[in-house]
Amino acid sequence: MKPPVNVTIVGMTPAVAALDVGGTSIKAALYDADLKDLASLREPTARGADGEALADQVARIVETLGKQAGTGTPDAVGVVIPGIVDEVERVARFSANLDFRDVPFGEMLDSRLGLPFAFGHDVRAGGLAEFRVGAGKGCTDAAFIPVGTGIAAALQLDGRLYAAGGQGGEIGHIDVGHRLPCGCGATGCLEAISSASAIARRYSEHTGRPAEGAEQVVDAARHGDEAAISVVNDALEGLGHGIKTLVTLLAPEVVVLGGGLFTAGDYVLEPVRAWLAANLQFQRMPELRIARLGDEAGRLGAALLGLDLLKP
Amino acid sequence: MKPPVNVTIVGMTPAVAALDVGGTSIKAALYDADLKDLASLREPTARGADGEALADQVARIVETLGKQAGTGTPDAVGVVIPGIVDEVERVARFSANLDFRDVPFGEMLDSRLGLPFAFGHDVRAGGLAEFRVGAGKGCTDAAFIPVGTGIAAALQLDGRLYAAGGQGGEIGHIDVGHRLPCGCGATGCLEAISSASAIARRYSEHTGRPAEGAEQVVDAARHGDEAAISVVNDALEGLGHGIKTLVTLLAPEVVVLGGGLFTAGDYVLEPVRAWLAANLQFQRMPELRIARLGDEAGRLGAALLGLDLLKP
Repeated sequence: MKPPVNVTIVGMTPAVAALDVGGTSIKAALYDADLKDLASLREPTARGADGEALADQVARIVETLGKQAGTGTPDAVGVVIPGIVDEVERVARFSANLDFRDVPFGEMLDSRLGLPFAFGHDVRAGGLAEFRVGAGKGCTDAAFIPVGTGIAAALQLDGRLYAAGGQGGEIGHIDVGHRLPCGCGATGCLEAISSASAIARRYSEHTGRPAEGAEQVVDAARHGDEAAISVVNDALEGLGHGIKTLVTLLAPEVVVLGGGLFTAGDYVLEPVRAWLAANLQFQRMPELRIARLGDEAGRLGAALLGLDLLKP
Repeated sequence: MKPPVNVTIVGMTPAVAALDVGGTSIKAALYDADLKDLASLREPTARGADGEALADQVARIVETLGKQAGTGTPDAVGVVIPGIVDEVERVARFSANLDFRDVPFGEMLDSRLGLPFAFGHDVRAGGLAEFRVGAGKGCTDAAFIPVGTGIAAALQLDGRLYAAGGQGGEIGHIDVGHRLPCGCGATGCLEAISSASAIARRYSEHTGRPAEGAEQVVDAARHGDEAAISVVNDALEGLGHGIKTLVTLLAPEVVVLGGGLFTAGDYVLEPVRAWLAANLQFQRMPELRIARLGDEAGRLGAALLGLDLLKP
């Protein structure tokens, strides 16, 4: 019996270069199709509003990763950035962190790489990874909410990632009923009371003592610091309120919570669950889970976006 | 040249019986594939918590419509009801108006009809009709919000109707920042300030004068009645707030507003638009449109659900 014609491809696992581009640094890795890490590196982000310097840097990193791993050129590349990203057109509509406005990053990388190239949004890609291989695995309708400097949600609706041209998922800017101003110009935003930066800032304002981040405030709360307890409670109640709104509109089966705040585990998860149990009326109680992929979620999502391009 | 084998089918337009079942009456019609109305009738809803009486009634109405139109048995049947409907399993999970709890209406009608039978939710079906052949035609991401006794939304996300097992779209119960109690047990719900019944009730409370419905209060507002102006303004601001939340999470291109309230046209639509223009920050402004199909939306949606079963 003759071997199948594509015998050199069957049995070989493709490699994908995945880059999570932040405002200050790029986390990059080369993965195989099982998301095994073959090589990785981290370097400062090249700046420039036209995106040319970043495009050059991405092309160079892709080459370096292939050399590091000894695999040569990968089969596909995925890049994710923060901001408003149109994944279909592969255009960065807006990114405050990168100073981008309507940068056609897809085209720019096509000409540099000559490889299947996927371009995505960091939080949505992180959600894709959590939904497919992390804490949200097996769900049809789910949300991933990483609580960081800001708060956004990745939504999986009816089994598919929801993007709305890159404009959806801005849960950080729904009104959760307080009167504090938000950087967006409105008052009452979830982000203004529950983000890691809001927690640190509010603790400093209340105590006159600086706080480096939300984790430090949660730690102080655990040790009985009353100002910290109050600020953390406000933040968790805000999250409860925001998740109630999400649940009322979209009824996800699972909500995956992430970011440094939720490394504190049940200490921060249980108050959110209790708030929801007390405040949901007829709405379906979602299962609350803590994210599993941590900092690597965005990069793994970029890898999945790249690997998806190789599917027949 | 020989005619195609399926010549008796090509050229014949299928007929679908569509029933919009409410708590008090059923609006039924027989449509052709172009949604031309071939026959219609209206009768009181048969009651009974096990659904048997209603199932018998549906089967009888289907037969009657076929006779009225002279087409005989239709090719498919679609029925929509209020409540929580699982369209995939074709089960009425809960319907306060019909006193249903976990009624397997799909199976019950399969055995009675022996025809392709679709079972859906009245508001989502109304949305399907508005999105496909009404005010939301041509959109990918859109919401349909009929303002009636209650307020719910039908969501079309990424080109597909979103159901979440029948639990999604409960925009009437998101918190829009007032302190009034809602029938659901919470305070601040959109429905408690912006539904047609809330408008009528609040006007009566403010003035001691009865109001039959929201339209009468809007009419009084137009004639300068200050209590009516205040109640209508509260309702429209509530809708603005609710739509802002929807837009922040889902960024629909179009929001279709319906129900008796919006028969007043721009008089009620413009204040909602102005509120959004003043209160959206970075969010994409949706196009606001008034529903086109009126009372017939649910029945037309039921027809579309039935016709969809006939597609290859």
